[in-house]
Amino acid sequence: MSSVFDASVLAPHVPPGMPENLIIRPLAKDDFSKGYLDLLGQLTSVGNIDQEAFEKRFEAMRVSVPNYHIVVIENTETRKVVASASLVVEMKFIHDAGSRGRVEDVVVDSAMRRQKLGAVLLKTLVSLGKSLGVYKMSLECVPELLPFYSQFGFKDDCNFMTQRF
Amino acid sequence: MSSVFDASVLAPHVPPGMPENLIIRPLAKDDFSKGYLDLLGQLTSVGNIDQEAFEKRFEAMRVSVPNYHIVVIENTETRKVVASASLVVEMKFIHDAGSRGRVEDVVVDSAMRRQKLGAVLLKTLVSLGKSLGVYKMSLECVPELLPFYSQFGFKDDCNFMTQRF
Repeated sequence: MSSVFDASVLAPHVPPGMPENLIIRPLAKDDFSKGYLDLLGQLTSVGNIDQEAFEKRFEAMRVSVPNYHIVVIENTETRKVVASASLVVEMKFIHDAGSRGRVEDVVVDSAMRRQKLGAVLLKTLVSLGKSLGVYKMSLECVPELLPFYSQFGFKDDCNFMTQRF
Repeated sequence: MSSVFDASVLAPHVPPGMPENLIIRPLAKDDFSKGYLDLLGQLTSVGNIDQEAFEKRFEAMRVSVPNYHIVVIENTETRKVVASASLVVEMKFIHDAGSRGRVEDVVVDSAMRRQKLGAVLLKTLVSLGKSLGVYKMSLECVPELLPFYSQFGFKDDCNFMTQRF
């Protein structure tokens, strides 16, 4: 299967009004050749991932339960991936052996800003998360993005601590 | 297999000096009968999880790749689980198809406070995370716990937003 998760799971959650030349869909195996990693490079360091390494990681995510819900927007004219965001689900014992969802790796191609693609992705993921039955969704962001994410129901919560190796 | 992850993976990361009647180990399938869910109930709502539901979730976590690194401390005299914390690993494409780790669901039995069991768990998980090669570890906490977690290398970072369903 070429999709990182089932496209039919995504379809009901896509908001109406997508521009004609753009499609929203799960990450696909051939997105390696459609600039997906270059797009992620606009977010943070990606490093050198060749096609084999990409496909290996893709496959590990695809068979994972719950799946990695990596959603992309492709420009069907240029055949490039121009935006992406992920919903990662973690299984718990708490909350009736529930699950929580996290919005990860939100990025829109700098040439495609101001077309509300970030909003499309966030609406899609929040709707998808609800339908998957997660009891909570969360994300981390810089203070400047608090107003953006608050549009989709997120509220500033507790502290977030990190360490890097 | 009765362990949610391989005990030999954990062993090198346990700090020395554990009290004699306490052992630290991966969550085991029979921890259902050792008060694991009651312990989690000191953290947040657990709901009604019967043994079948517990074992089903346990099994889903056990076969997950990467595993759910749920670590518990058992009092070998009372045969009760008295503390727990988890390291959950998420696969990424960014950072050379790296992984990030999250410290989740840290809880110490209220009758076992002031014995530094939380510190034992945090030291163990940070060491384990490093050895697993995660590029970053993170956690969420209330402001009162910032000094506690800063002892283990965590620093207050960006904003953390949530919504609940």
